[in-house]
Amino acid sequence: MDRASSFPASRHLPLALTMGDPSGIGPELALKAWAARQHSDAPFFILGDVEHLSALAQHLKLDVPCVEVQPDEALKIFPTALPVVPLTHRVKGAPGTPDPADAAATIQSIEQAVALVKAGDASAIVTNPIAKEVLYASGFKYPGHTEFLGHLSDVLFGVTAQPVMMLWSPDLAVVPATIHVALSAVPKLLTVDLLLTTTRIVAQDLRQHFGLANPRIVLTGLNPHAGEGGAMGREEIEIIAPAIAILRAEGLNVTGPHPADTLFHAAKRSTYDVVIAMYHDQALIPLKTLAFDSGVNVTLGLPFVRTSPDHGTAFDIAGQGLANPASLIEALRLAARLTGERA
Amino acid sequence: MDRASSFPASRHLPLALTMGDPSGIGPELALKAWAARQHSDAPFFILGDVEHLSALAQHLKLDVPCVEVQPDEALKIFPTALPVVPLTHRVKGAPGTPDPADAAATIQSIEQAVALVKAGDASAIVTNPIAKEVLYASGFKYPGHTEFLGHLSDVLFGVTAQPVMMLWSPDLAVVPATIHVALSAVPKLLTVDLLLTTTRIVAQDLRQHFGLANPRIVLTGLNPHAGEGGAMGREEIEIIAPAIAILRAEGLNVTGPHPADTLFHAAKRSTYDVVIAMYHDQALIPLKTLAFDSGVNVTLGLPFVRTSPDHGTAFDIAGQGLANPASLIEALRLAARLTGERA
Repeated sequence: MDRASSFPASRHLPLALTMGDPSGIGPELALKAWAARQHSDAPFFILGDVEHLSALAQHLKLDVPCVEVQPDEALKIFPTALPVVPLTHRVKGAPGTPDPADAAATIQSIEQAVALVKAGDASAIVTNPIAKEVLYASGFKYPGHTEFLGHLSDVLFGVTAQPVMMLWSPDLAVVPATIHVALSAVPKLLTVDLLLTTTRIVAQDLRQHFGLANPRIVLTGLNPHAGEGGAMGREEIEIIAPAIAILRAEGLNVTGPHPADTLFHAAKRSTYDVVIAMYHDQALIPLKTLAFDSGVNVTLGLPFVRTSPDHGTAFDIAGQGLANPASLIEALRLAARLTGERA
Repeated sequence: MDRASSFPASRHLPLALTMGDPSGIGPELALKAWAARQHSDAPFFILGDVEHLSALAQHLKLDVPCVEVQPDEALKIFPTALPVVPLTHRVKGAPGTPDPADAAATIQSIEQAVALVKAGDASAIVTNPIAKEVLYASGFKYPGHTEFLGHLSDVLFGVTAQPVMMLWSPDLAVVPATIHVALSAVPKLLTVDLLLTTTRIVAQDLRQHFGLANPRIVLTGLNPHAGEGGAMGREEIEIIAPAIAILRAEGLNVTGPHPADTLFHAAKRSTYDVVIAMYHDQALIPLKTLAFDSGVNVTLGLPFVRTSPDHGTAFDIAGQGLANPASLIEALRLAARLTGERA
């Protein structure tokens, strides 16, 4: 017996997928993800413009019927068509040519997704890529997607969230403690408090959503060979090791600082559940080397589950049928897994 | 017909292997590499103490006869015993307990290896790991192995060398432009001149030793997403791109700066021969993630071929029979390949 069939019907909710920048590859990925749906996949709807999506499907010669629905109709429609929950803004979405006039719809798609989860109409949100520069032109004032979701947590859930980005793949999960900043700014931004906050959120979310009773967390060093006892930088001694001592005293299973270069081969990966890295490339290089097409971005520390593909809008290939939906499909599957939703 | 058999006999020279820190895993690796020799492998001798090596073989229950020889006897002895070319210093070499009293022998082993290549008694040098702190205690004043080899090039070959470390594996070759420095020092150290010098040496050595007529060289960015047009750091705009423009004007096949996180998956690796990364972990993380046991360190820019395993002395496992000789074996094979030597 399929375990899912024993769930009460009321438990089943669709996933809310944002359209992302409509001139990027997001809408194409959504069409392809629907076309590639498996019987075991959780249903989803996309927040977008049904005319835009239908035209795109036709342009790409994808046999994907798109039907405008309200969220509560999505489960019923999903087996036969891509359910599209409408926005109040129409979408232009010329492939490869982002248009600031579409920014309002892009932002509304995200806001609505969070609101629908809050209202109990969707189980989790999965976001397609946005282009911040395009949104900035229309007054968007957040450094990125994740910070905007933190703001929505505050406004819609009354929760002051501290979003933490985790990159997840079946082979490796990594959390960069600092993210989209110049490398020269990283040493200044690394503090004991940042590492404490980040690690506690990771531990909490891995317990709550990933089913790990006491997740095995490892921290990298910042410097080559984790500083070699202070010979190549002192951040390990002054910041990272003290943070680890505090976290261990709290009962968390945390070790480090480990030299980053020897932390990611297969034998070592089997010894931990997640790596907290000190900066972007230290986390993203191993993740994308090992799982280029199937890495998923999971935002921890929010009052809801949010995943996304770990790539950008790819304007250069939008509208050409070349976009690979593997990461979005994995993002949808992970969101369903983390919320206990099934088909 | 074996191509090697058409070489004049005088062309055949053994490889010179240094003992490294005798309390580390180097001597054990040498014994195991000899025991694992294939018919097609080039012969080598080790510069060390025959009594120390014989005792270690006995301790580890390795059936490796060790015979003291002069370099010109090594080829004849190699099929039946590990040839050991003696030093003037005896070696204590207690496993796991490095002794500053052994520093003189460790250093002499390196000096002699270079001198024997210069004298035409060896084709190339392969170095076992040393522990700099142990050598510092006895007055060694070089930041590391590579800088010491640069000094020996000067003294013995009369060549002012600019050694460049390349990490090589069958899957990936990477060169870190800056190496064993704190991460916070990297932005200051990156200059157009450094990138020009490094890239020219890499191009020259790949042509000369690796048989690549016009090697495909890619440079990473320093910052996340290669700075995203200056939004996250300006080193790409002010340093890396200008260096690439100059190198391309010289006719070199150089591209970049590329975002480092998306540069190392299999499809991308097939588009280049070598990556020049901006700092240690950016180069070493992908290399050791993909080729943990078999990566080889090759020093470019020297007047001789030098390779080494890409790991350290591993005092914690020395003398226990646990050390994996895969990287040393690959280092010996690559040195033989780069000098055209065969069994």
